[in-house]
Amino acid sequence: MATNTRIDDARLWSALMSMAEIGATPKGGVKRLTLTDVDRAGRDRFRAWCEALGLSVRVDAIGNMFARREGRDPARPPVLMGSHLDSQPSGGKFDGALGVIAGLEVMRTLHEHAIQTEAPIELVNWTDEEGSRFGHSLMGSGTWAGIFPLEKTYGLRDADGVRVEDALDAIGYRGPEPARPFAADSYFELHIEQGPILEREARTIGIVTGAQAQIWYDAVITGQDAHAGTTPPSARRDALVSMARIVELVDRIMRARGDDGRGTVGFVQVGPNSRNVVPGEVRFSIEFRHPDFAEVQKMAAEMTAAADALAAPCRLELTELFRLDAQPFDPACIGLVRDAAQRLNLPAREIVSGAGHDAVYVARHIPTAMIFTPCKDGLSHNEAESIEPHEAAAGAQVLFEAVLARANRAL
Amino acid sequence: MATNTRIDDARLWSALMSMAEIGATPKGGVKRLTLTDVDRAGRDRFRAWCEALGLSVRVDAIGNMFARREGRDPARPPVLMGSHLDSQPSGGKFDGALGVIAGLEVMRTLHEHAIQTEAPIELVNWTDEEGSRFGHSLMGSGTWAGIFPLEKTYGLRDADGVRVEDALDAIGYRGPEPARPFAADSYFELHIEQGPILEREARTIGIVTGAQAQIWYDAVITGQDAHAGTTPPSARRDALVSMARIVELVDRIMRARGDDGRGTVGFVQVGPNSRNVVPGEVRFSIEFRHPDFAEVQKMAAEMTAAADALAAPCRLELTELFRLDAQPFDPACIGLVRDAAQRLNLPAREIVSGAGHDAVYVARHIPTAMIFTPCKDGLSHNEAESIEPHEAAAGAQVLFEAVLARANRAL
Repeated sequence: MATNTRIDDARLWSALMSMAEIGATPKGGVKRLTLTDVDRAGRDRFRAWCEALGLSVRVDAIGNMFARREGRDPARPPVLMGSHLDSQPSGGKFDGALGVIAGLEVMRTLHEHAIQTEAPIELVNWTDEEGSRFGHSLMGSGTWAGIFPLEKTYGLRDADGVRVEDALDAIGYRGPEPARPFAADSYFELHIEQGPILEREARTIGIVTGAQAQIWYDAVITGQDAHAGTTPPSARRDALVSMARIVELVDRIMRARGDDGRGTVGFVQVGPNSRNVVPGEVRFSIEFRHPDFAEVQKMAAEMTAAADALAAPCRLELTELFRLDAQPFDPACIGLVRDAAQRLNLPAREIVSGAGHDAVYVARHIPTAMIFTPCKDGLSHNEAESIEPHEAAAGAQVLFEAVLARANRAL
Repeated sequence: MATNTRIDDARLWSALMSMAEIGATPKGGVKRLTLTDVDRAGRDRFRAWCEALGLSVRVDAIGNMFARREGRDPARPPVLMGSHLDSQPSGGKFDGALGVIAGLEVMRTLHEHAIQTEAPIELVNWTDEEGSRFGHSLMGSGTWAGIFPLEKTYGLRDADGVRVEDALDAIGYRGPEPARPFAADSYFELHIEQGPILEREARTIGIVTGAQAQIWYDAVITGQDAHAGTTPPSARRDALVSMARIVELVDRIMRARGDDGRGTVGFVQVGPNSRNVVPGEVRFSIEFRHPDFAEVQKMAAEMTAAADALAAPCRLELTELFRLDAQPFDPACIGLVRDAAQRLNLPAREIVSGAGHDAVYVARHIPTAMIFTPCKDGLSHNEAESIEPHEAAAGAQVLFEAVLARANRAL
C-alpha cells in the first residue's frame, strides 16, 4: 500500500497563496465571508482548478461542492476529503483553505502521476463552516448531515436581513443535488490545529481521535443601574461584580481538569456601560469542553450549582444553548493517518479537537478522521494566523497517503 | 428672617412637566442633549418664562444663562441659584431641570408676592452638565470657573465632529458675556439625590455638606486572543479572567470603607468579544470616591499595589484620568439650608454628594450649598427617574427660604 509518490510542496503553497488573494486583507489575512461575491470568486477559482484536472463538480442545495475523480471500480463508494473555503471576518489564510487546497494537491498529484485508485475520490468544499455571517457555524455540513433542516437553514438571515437561500441564488451556488448524506466510504479532513499543543511539543502531525464534548450557555445577570457616585455599597446590585465571580468560577472549574478541560467566557455585553453607572445588566456566554461527555456534564453541573449564590444579590438567568456529546472518529481511518505519519517519520501525537469542524457532523454518517498541522503561536480566527510551508506539505502528504490507502484498500 | 410665604406647588410641577415635554421620550424620560435644537427649545422656553417676570437674561461665551432680578441695594453682589437643563441621552425629567425650574418658581413667588430682596438674585442654567455629547461633564460651570480654558472647550467635538463653538453658534447661544467668575454673594443648587439614601431613611431634604473626592482610571488588560476550544489552561492569557479579579478587588476596597466608599467598574469593552475566543484584550474604567481625599488616595493605592499581580499572566496598563479633592461647601450657606428644613419641619440629614455637580466648580469661587431631594429607588440617568410632587415642592421651598435669607442677610 505504501507509495513513494510525493505531493508537490511548491505547487501546494502556490495554490494556498493564490486562494488567499481572494478576500486578502491589508494585515495579511483573509475576509471571505460565506456566500458573498468574494466567496463566489473563491469557489469559481476552486471549480476551475478541479475541472482542469478533469474532475466533475456537483453542487448541492446548500452550496456544498463535490469534485469527483472516478476510480477503477464503479461499484465502490467514494472516499471524501475536504474542508471549507469561507473565512471569519478577520480570518487567516489557512483555516479551512488548507484542507481544501491540500485535497486539490492530492488530486493534482494523482493526475500528474496518472494514478488510478480503486474507489472514486471526492474533494469537498463545505458551505459556511464559520457561521460568521448567518450566526450558524457548520451550516453546510450540518444541513447535509440532516442536523439542520434545509428549509430552516434557508430562512436564516444575515445582519442585513439577507436570507441564506437568496444569498445562494445571488452567487449562483444553489445546486441541484440534494443536501443529504450519500453512500460514501470515508471522510478525511486536514486542518490547522488552531491551538498551541503541536507547536509546543514540536509535533508536525496531530492524529485527531475525535472532537470534544461541549455545553454552551447564554447568561444574563440582572441587578440595578445606579449612580456610581451616590450609591453606597449596601444599596448596590452590581451585575458586573456578580459576573466577575462567575468568570472566575468558570476558570477554576476548567483548571481543576488539568489540560483537558476548557471553560471560557468569550462574549460580554455590559449595560448601560457608562463609567459612572453601576452596571445593572450583563449578558455573557459560558462554554465548557472536555474530551469526555460525562466530565463536561460535571463541569456544567458544578457551575450551575454555584452560580446563583455567586450572582446574589443580582439575579442570574442561564439558558443552555446545546450540549454536544464527544464525537469519536473512526478507528480504521485514524489508523491510516497514524500509519502515514509513522511511515513518513513525522513527529506526531494523538489529539482531541477542541474546535468544531465539518468532520464532526460528517462523522455521524461516514467513517471519519482528521489530520492537524501546527499553526504559529496557536493563533487562528486572526489575520496573523500563520503556518510553515513544510508543515502544510507534511499534512498534505499524510492526507494523500491516508486517502490513497483507503481508496485502494481490500474489501 | 422667617417668612410664611409659600411657593406654588402646582405651578412648580406644571412647569417641570412643561419643560419635560421638550425632548420627551416614549418611555417617559427626556433626551435634551446639550446645544442641540432640543436644548435650544428648552432654553427658549426658560428665557421666555424669565422675561415674563421682568428678569433680564444674560448669556456668556459658553452659553451659560443668568436671569437677574434686581435687589434693593445695587451695591450688593447677587445671590445665585440654578442647575442645568441638558440631559443624558436616556435621561429623566428631573436631573438638572428640578434645580432650574425650582429657581424659576422662587422667582415667580417673589414676583407674585412683590417681595423685594436686599441683594439681587440670579437664576442660572449651566451649559452641558452631563458631558454626554462632548465627553466633558460640567463643561459650562467648569469653563466659567476657569478650570477648562475657553478655547480648549470650544475645540471639543461630538461624535459627528461638530465643535462646541459651532454648536453654540448654531443654536444662537454663544453670548457676549465673558465666561468667568464675577462678584457674587453665594450659590444654591437644588438637585435630586441620584442615590437611595434619603428615600431609604425617609428624609425629604439632604443638606449637602460637600462633594466627594474622586480618582478615575482607564485600564487596559492585554492577554492573547486564542481559540476557546483548542487552547488549554496552561497556554491561556485570558484578559477577562484578569479583569474579573480586578473588578472584585475594586469592590472589596470599596466595602472595606463601609457606606462611605465608592468603587466602580462601569464601562467594559472586551476584544474580540466572540463566544469561542478567549478574550485577548479588555478595556475598562475604574473609579473611587470618598468624602475624604486621603482615604480615596489610599483606596487607589491599594488597587494599584495589587492589580498587576492579579492581572498576571496578562499585562495591565492603568492611566489615571484625574484625581479631584473633596469640595466642602460653605458652612454659612449650609446653615441656611439646615435652618430652612428645620423651620419647615422637614425630615432632613446631612449628606455628601457622590455625583459631580455644577455647584462643585462654582464652590471654588463663591460660597455654595446644595439641597438634595429623594428620587424613586435612587434611580437617575434613566428614563424611569421619578420624584414625588410634594418632595419637589419641599426642596423648592427650602431653596426659596435659603436664598431669601441670604439675599436679605445683614452685612
